[in-house]
Amino acid sequence: MSQLNSLLNITKTKKSRLEEVDFDNLQFGKNYADHMMYCDYIDGEWQKPVIAPYGPMSFEPSVKVFHYGQAVFEGMKAFKDDHDDVWLFRPEDNLNRINISSKRMAIPEFPKEYFMESLKTLMQLDKDWVKKGQGNSLYIRPFAIATEPGVSASESNQYRFMIITCPAKAYYSKPVKVLIAQDYSRSADGGVGYAKAAGNYGAQFYPTKLAKEKGLDQIIWTDANTHQYMEEAGTMNIFFRINDKLLTAPTNDRILDGITRRSIIQLAKDEGLDVEIDRVEVKRIIDAAKAGELKEIFGAGTAATIVAVEGFEYDDTYYDLPEMKDSFGMHFKKRLQDIQYNRAEDPHNWRFKI
Amino acid sequence: MSQLNSLLNITKTKKSRLEEVDFDNLQFGKNYADHMMYCDYIDGEWQKPVIAPYGPMSFEPSVKVFHYGQAVFEGMKAFKDDHDDVWLFRPEDNLNRINISSKRMAIPEFPKEYFMESLKTLMQLDKDWVKKGQGNSLYIRPFAIATEPGVSASESNQYRFMIITCPAKAYYSKPVKVLIAQDYSRSADGGVGYAKAAGNYGAQFYPTKLAKEKGLDQIIWTDANTHQYMEEAGTMNIFFRINDKLLTAPTNDRILDGITRRSIIQLAKDEGLDVEIDRVEVKRIIDAAKAGELKEIFGAGTAATIVAVEGFEYDDTYYDLPEMKDSFGMHFKKRLQDIQYNRAEDPHNWRFKI
Ligand SMILES: Cc1ncc(COP(=O)(O)O)c(C=O)c1O
Ligand SMILES: Cc1ncc(COP(=O)(O)O)c(C=O)c1O
Repeated sequence: MSQLNSLLNITKTKKSRLEEVDFDNLQFGKNYADHMMYCDYIDGEWQKPVIAPYGPMSFEPSVKVFHYGQAVFEGMKAFKDDHDDVWLFRPEDNLNRINISSKRMAIPEFPKEYFMESLKTLMQLDKDWVKKGQGNSLYIRPFAIATEPGVSASESNQYRFMIITCPAKAYYSKPVKVLIAQDYSRSADGGVGYAKAAGNYGAQFYPTKLAKEKGLDQIIWTDANTHQYMEEAGTMNIFFRINDKLLTAPTNDRILDGITRRSIIQLAKDEGLDVEIDRVEVKRIIDAAKAGELKEIFGAGTAATIVAVEGFEYDDTYYDLPEMKDSFGMHFKKRLQDIQYNRAEDPHNWRFKI
Repeated sequence: MSQLNSLLNITKTKKSRLEEVDFDNLQFGKNYADHMMYCDYIDGEWQKPVIAPYGPMSFEPSVKVFHYGQAVFEGMKAFKDDHDDVWLFRPEDNLNRINISSKRMAIPEFPKEYFMESLKTLMQLDKDWVKKGQGNSLYIRPFAIATEPGVSASESNQYRFMIITCPAKAYYSKPVKVLIAQDYSRSADGGVGYAKAAGNYGAQFYPTKLAKEKGLDQIIWTDANTHQYMEEAGTMNIFFRINDKLLTAPTNDRILDGITRRSIIQLAKDEGLDVEIDRVEVKRIIDAAKAGELKEIFGAGTAATIVAVEGFEYDDTYYDLPEMKDSFGMHFKKRLQDIQYNRAEDPHNWRFKI
């Protein structure tokens, strides 16, 4: 059934796939909601966005995204409150960031009204895919790919911007063990580390696989030049707590400017907490761990919200972290989720109602 | 028409598109030969490779290559000699290198016999797409992409290896002007710069666009840490000639181990030329340019073979290079092409007959 909207072309699914999904045993990223959005950039312009049933699409084997990784993405979530209202969290920050990423990857920026209107329409059409209850959400994946056929190494003249969504439970169910990187690295000065460029992620799979073979779950990347400063994890910014001070690295051209990170810093400042945003020397963390002053490390990102680090390996030594009763990480996780699920005041207007 | 081969499944095209192509006005990477190869990795195994007519394929919007740039590629060429025989140049080096790239990108290695048999079959089927004559070739693009649907940031369990080909004239028709990088960078220590990973290329489009706006054609990348050492260009290794000495950077984890580079070094050594493979300080090149001792700079890669640099910009100063009568670059270009087109002895067995 086709339906016209001033901004979008909408075709609804004939039959929802909702009943086929086992929501009690969700595997993250394996089930997609009924609808998706796609919008093509052709002849120098973004065409009218299309909302259509989720499904496969045809591409020439020569499209540039396959060869040159000219692609960017975002990750966001929709939450349902007890009154069945659906909320997004700081969606314009995701739009701004994908446009920052796109600029670095020579992809044209995507218009705000197309983005917001598509999100609203998708959330309305697929609202039954957003489940109530702590930890449940609909994960939203906007992305843009270079679709011009051509094997010469230059930017594409055609792109496709898409939004697909999938139901999610808590991404990491338990605390993680991490490796502090000393050999491999994630990004270079003057590179694309601050962008959610597709290739940044594929490049981490192999070092992460090696870390997993050692019984660790993830890597905390350090600066590529010296490996002396903590940067971030694969899909999370990282916070350290030394006694009652919260530390995190400043963003720069190697580190993603995370929205969860930014929100935690704001909440911590609201509470008068001592937050230090400065280069975090690995040595300082090791010394604090040895002195018993390193109280916690946690990762912050949309997928996981906040995930506790239970220990880390550095220089072939494994450091256990204490289990904290009054964990900062768990405190901010609750504060963020209370805002996201519309259970608490939202002093900074982060919630966005569908 | 289907035909069985012990190693491959072959379906030939019903109607060749050869006559539709204007070989006098070829745009590189815009026309694809009649056949392609694809081979899927499923359940831990590469399935039987398929040779089929070139054409579009269906992919889910969630396949990992779109989101995480888990993809690698190669570039090679087929040449036709005066007796209508078709030749490849060091094809096993390309296989070895794509497998090195794949390892770094957590992609399973591709079997040698599938690769060689596919190349032979494609070259036989599409031999009329390989045109005779200086500068003409069939460009061959093997690549592998992550095809598992799934938006969680981890390596794919499914891949597709493909080979597509397209007729090519000389890639760069004229000498280029280059920018010596001082702000942006191409790769980090401990990163993926030595791999032909898709994302390495998309990441260069924006800085290259900025260079083009200044009237320059390409960038010579320097090391990300200090920008004091010359590395390579976007798709070429770089050689410098100071008086009669040839200099080029050693390969490392930031620099692609080019087959053209390796071949030139061998030929230069065969001729008793003074070749220095060591870090090339930018300052040394600038000083040599000022002293009139910098005779030439040239890029070396499969697409271009060898391309002369006519001048470069560094620190907002443009340095012109002299026009050389006895250019090393043009000498090695001729020597390489004489081998590639079967016009000269091939002492190192680089030619591979189809
Ligand atoms: C590299 C990287 N760092 C940090 C984050 C966390 O950012 P956000 O809180 O906006 O999800 C992400 C995930 O988006 C990421 O990919
Ligand atoms: C980054 C980079 N450097 C150098 C080269 C040259 O390598 P080759 O001579 O094997 O084509 C290429 C092209 O393949 C490349 O992509």
